[in-house]
Amino acid sequence: MTPTKTELLRDTIEHLDIKAHDVRPLVRAMGHMAFQARNLHRAATLYDAMLEDTECGVILCLAGSLFSAGLKQVVVDLVRHRMVDAIVSTGALIVDQDFFEALGFRHYRGSPHADDNTLRELHIDRIYDTFIDEDELRECDATIARLASELETRPYSSREFIGEMGAWLARHGKTRDSVVLAAHEAGVPIFCPAFSDCSAGFGLVHHQWTRAGRPQLSIDSARDFLELTRCRLALRDSGLFMVGGGVPKNFAQDVVVAADFVGQPVAMHKYAVQLTVADERDGALSGSTLREASSWGKVATTAEQMVYGEATLTLPLVAGYAFHQRHWEARPERRLVAACQ
Amino acid sequence: MTPTKTELLRDTIEHLDIKAHDVRPLVRAMGHMAFQARNLHRAATLYDAMLEDTECGVILCLAGSLFSAGLKQVVVDLVRHRMVDAIVSTGALIVDQDFFEALGFRHYRGSPHADDNTLRELHIDRIYDTFIDEDELRECDATIARLASELETRPYSSREFIGEMGAWLARHGKTRDSVVLAAHEAGVPIFCPAFSDCSAGFGLVHHQWTRAGRPQLSIDSARDFLELTRCRLALRDSGLFMVGGGVPKNFAQDVVVAADFVGQPVAMHKYAVQLTVADERDGALSGSTLREASSWGKVATTAEQMVYGEATLTLPLVAGYAFHQRHWEARPERRLVAACQ
Amino acid sequence: MTPTKTELLRDTIEHLDIKAHDVRPLVRAMGHMAFQARNLHRAATLYDAMLEDTECGVILCLAGSLFSAGLKQVVVDLVRHRMVDAIVSTGALIVDQDFFEALGFRHYRGSPHADDNTLRELHIDRIYDTFIDEDELRECDATIARLASELETRPYSSREFIGEMGAWLARHGKTRDSVVLAAHEAGVPIFCPAFSDCSAGFGLVHHQWTRAGRPQLSIDSARDFLELTRCRLALRDSGLFMVGGGVPKNFAQDVVVAADFVGQPVAMHKYAVQLTVADERDGALSGSTLREASSWGKVATTAEQMVYGEATLTLPLVAGYAFHQRHWEARPERRLVAACQ
Amino acid sequence: MTPTKTELLRDTIEHLDIKAHDVRPLVRAMGHMAFQARNLHRAATLYDAMLEDTECGVILCLAGSLFSAGLKQVVVDLVRHRMVDAIVSTGALIVDQDFFEALGFRHYRGSPHADDNTLRELHIDRIYDTFIDEDELRECDATIARLASELETRPYSSREFIGEMGAWLARHGKTRDSVVLAAHEAGVPIFCPAFSDCSAGFGLVHHQWTRAGRPQLSIDSARDFLELTRCRLALRDSGLFMVGGGVPKNFAQDVVVAADFVGQPVAMHKYAVQLTVADERDGALSGSTLREASSWGKVATTAEQMVYGEATLTLPLVAGYAFHQRHWEARPERRLVAACQ
Repeated sequence: MTPTKTELLRDTIEHLDIKAHDVRPLVRAMGHMAFQARNLHRAATLYDAMLEDTECGVILCLAGSLFSAGLKQVVVDLVRHRMVDAIVSTGALIVDQDFFEALGFRHYRGSPHADDNTLRELHIDRIYDTFIDEDELRECDATIARLASELETRPYSSREFIGEMGAWLARHGKTRDSVVLAAHEAGVPIFCPAFSDCSAGFGLVHHQWTRAGRPQLSIDSARDFLELTRCRLALRDSGLFMVGGGVPKNFAQDVVVAADFVGQPVAMHKYAVQLTVADERDGALSGSTLREASSWGKVATTAEQMVYGEATLTLPLVAGYAFHQRHWEARPERRLVAACQ
Repeated sequence: MTPTKTELLRDTIEHLDIKAHDVRPLVRAMGHMAFQARNLHRAATLYDAMLEDTECGVILCLAGSLFSAGLKQVVVDLVRHRMVDAIVSTGALIVDQDFFEALGFRHYRGSPHADDNTLRELHIDRIYDTFIDEDELRECDATIARLASELETRPYSSREFIGEMGAWLARHGKTRDSVVLAAHEAGVPIFCPAFSDCSAGFGLVHHQWTRAGRPQLSIDSARDFLELTRCRLALRDSGLFMVGGGVPKNFAQDVVVAADFVGQPVAMHKYAVQLTVADERDGALSGSTLREASSWGKVATTAEQMVYGEATLTLPLVAGYAFHQRHWEARPERRLVAACQ
Repeated sequence: MTPTKTELLRDTIEHLDIKAHDVRPLVRAMGHMAFQARNLHRAATLYDAMLEDTECGVILCLAGSLFSAGLKQVVVDLVRHRMVDAIVSTGALIVDQDFFEALGFRHYRGSPHADDNTLRELHIDRIYDTFIDEDELRECDATIARLASELETRPYSSREFIGEMGAWLARHGKTRDSVVLAAHEAGVPIFCPAFSDCSAGFGLVHHQWTRAGRPQLSIDSARDFLELTRCRLALRDSGLFMVGGGVPKNFAQDVVVAADFVGQPVAMHKYAVQLTVADERDGALSGSTLREASSWGKVATTAEQMVYGEATLTLPLVAGYAFHQRHWEARPERRLVAACQ
Repeated sequence: MTPTKTELLRDTIEHLDIKAHDVRPLVRAMGHMAFQARNLHRAATLYDAMLEDTECGVILCLAGSLFSAGLKQVVVDLVRHRMVDAIVSTGALIVDQDFFEALGFRHYRGSPHADDNTLRELHIDRIYDTFIDEDELRECDATIARLASELETRPYSSREFIGEMGAWLARHGKTRDSVVLAAHEAGVPIFCPAFSDCSAGFGLVHHQWTRAGRPQLSIDSARDFLELTRCRLALRDSGLFMVGGGVPKNFAQDVVVAADFVGQPVAMHKYAVQLTVADERDGALSGSTLREASSWGKVATTAEQMVYGEATLTLPLVAGYAFHQRHWEARPERRLVAACQ
């Protein structure tokens, strides 16, 4: 018998709290092992080293369905504890998953073996083993459309627009545990270089469609690149903490070259860590080694580490290790939002 | 002894010509086997079915370093033979690789074991086993910056800007075998939803940096989404032919939902084929099954097929099979560029 | 409605014939590309070089469900055309798949989405997208048990036992297109170092169970290693052509060390090619690089190549290329079976 | 400057101690997430359920370079705390890695980027990022050869031979923390169905080579299968805890069919857990789903779980969770060695 929508949307995804688990003894033990355990330990110590290095700004790159999978609170905590100075992300994470939950909606534990035709009829969207209420997602799209319609009709960087989303959440949000809200409060800029490739895209298409022939708000992705370059120029050194690959990885790596191209050369990224399941043999950027990035002049080779593992297993350990080392306590709040303008 | 730049940049990448290899007997034999050979056969027949179905427009999605790897001519041929009606791509493919070669530059066969610090000193960039002259790439960036400076200062969709690149190549290009040029000639729109995440980004950042305080050209990624939605509305049915995942896959799948969101509901994508090495178990979009996309109302489940294999091995067989079936001969030239405006 | 067994076991797997497809122009074109296409070209030319090198014996290593997937005829043709001098394989390939088909049974095209509980009730076994009649497989097990009972009760190497299977097929087999039979005729030894890990195991367990307390036939896996070492000692040089990893890869690589250990040092394997989907990052042997094998003194580094791709896609191209080069025409028939005794 | 052997063999691999890390709160939190974190939680609870189910015997399957990577103590602890009743393993783990360390030798932390030709000259073997002293490994081989020469010249199951190794270690071993020794003491049988495919193979080849023409010890892999079948017959229910795939996974799954084939039908494995990086799309056994195994009548579908992740990251969490649940306290010591004879 086919289950009902209520039965299918019952078990909520709960976000892991790195503050509650001091994983340092476990991660340290992994440092004496081999393979990915040892790689993970090194990645954790490199992230910790970025935080201890007070001259170094940290750019967090996010790709993959991390927040719907229970990793949202990890990033909220990184923002709140000055463990990250700028974020480059896919739009889905920021809008469909974080902003969505900030509207009071939730993700649900489902099954990868569910019948997708049944789900579609019930207005349930599936991400591997996770369910989302499609009607709630449409409400998220509509909220973005309304928000866009209240803003001045001019080109925005995604960073600016997400800043407006943060300001809106400060007034209307249903939860404080939101990456968009926490970043707004901490002055941490969030960039989505492919911002229309998500729920925001639906909202903005709706905005432009209904404003046809009239002045419209637009999203200037070139400006995102310019602003992130300005962030880098405001830092003495930089480190990349990358979860997944895709556009965020490439975009953040490229900023060193962009600075050079506008006549403001800066040092290569001093540290680089990537958690990924991709591998280098297909030649795609997501799995390209950080050594390869060094040939492009983007990343220094002495302090880079890739960890081959799925993020729900690796991010809690790497971020948890660095959190409990507490080097963030002595870090300044950089508020790079100011450098973007 | 360290090799010189001339020694390292000697063996050029040559693009495979699907017209020269009638792979149909081989692909048909694979259809009676198992595993990925059989999947590949089914993908090839589905792509062929899209082309035979005269009511169906074909959207080609491209991600990964395909053109630097020798697959540029395959896409040029698909465009020239009416085997694709719209393209969604990463910026790197369109600008750093296709436009770059159209300027007369080349990619070179290198080694994944090269010393990246040496390469950097020689201004050689590496993509796995392929080398690029960084100085030539900077020339490509600068060309984009100049081109931008000659255009009207207003928001452009990436499609519009790439159209301008095509027009420029028609006058100044060094080769006719360019995807950007062929698409310009055939009226095939090319979308790069993350357009600043590539060489174009460097050019545009340079443009905006040097124009600080003055009117600037910008890239409106929301408008890309609107335009691709309009392309879908101009078609009775649609099929997706996806090479790799990432933003292009998501963006093109989403257009069905976008159409619905602006009150113009259309049918789900009737056909969907993806060639990929990603897998579903990390929950990321790149490896998500096309059945999963069906729960979102994006893709119909009856005619979808994923092929697990690296694109240099699989694309020549799938595209070659469909080319030699010659169903493209009876296809109309849709010139969807007109639907974008 | 649940399908019947007859409906499910209808579409037979048909084996690909490399003789019918001259893939050399395609493979040569791949040699000017990048990533796995170029790796595949190099692997094909290295296999061809092994065959051209008349002092070099070729050991073919097989793992994975290759024969049930339609690759049996490829190996039959390699054996018949003197393109291989010894085979190391999993037991499943040799017994459950090759010997099984030689009894007149077939594999069937099925679906990875079939309901496995239904299949079990119908006595249908599934390998990903392939179906097997469990009742026929039991008949295969029973044939092995009968064959064992007719042999002298002493330790056999798997090679000896498989030789007996070949002799039996020469009298009773239902098809001539059998690897076991072709190898028997050509004097090519076949080793299954984990011989009881397959249908043969069921037959031999039955033999030993019913002979409890009486003299029994046994399978001496140490003797396999000794015999393969003797094969290597009978050769001036050796090359490995490996499809998949697992025990066969390790076993064949190790033979160089074994020769040294019994005081008969030989050169490292001069050529080594592996087609695989495994990767090195989990530290397991299947995906370990051939460069790593060089640290162990097993494989020379100058002529090794791994190709990352699934075997149904890659083996037809690599084997087909070498077949149509026809360097096998000038190769001697080595009949290494004689060296084993 | 090339490093010396002493410099390269300096940092020892240290084995992780699950007793020191109560990972239960972390693993429980993962149970409310998605993707592999949730899969890992379910795998951990299923392993725990096997231990709580007093009628259920647990068969541990091991493949991959686990012990050289620092996971040896995990397995020693599973054996000592009655968390496993039988082990099926690759030979390399049992002989080259466990027995090797019991002789007083160690594994060393190295680098995957080391020059393999240099390593070979220094007699250093590499496993990804781990180094081994080849001279010490030869000493291990020679010890096996001596041990074989002292035994009665008849066919042994690998289980019997490994039992003799355990007895030898009880007298001569340099450490108590050995899987072979602990299993000997606890009456836990260890099977290596491809026993000659490892350091033992070198020892046994040496034995048979030097005994040519005289009575020899042999290894009967059919008898292994018979003995493991007897173990299963001695149990009411069974559960599989599999790390990696390969021969051990197949062998242990098959035992249900073997029991049926000798006329002693038993229930399918009631529980099955696999930690692996392989995936199902190449059709090979290592990545085949446990649902697929159900079509073969080997594994029940209600309590199976695969976890996609590298074992150094996943095994400490799964085994650690079950250890700290302490259901092993109420488990009987089954001493299945007795059932083998």
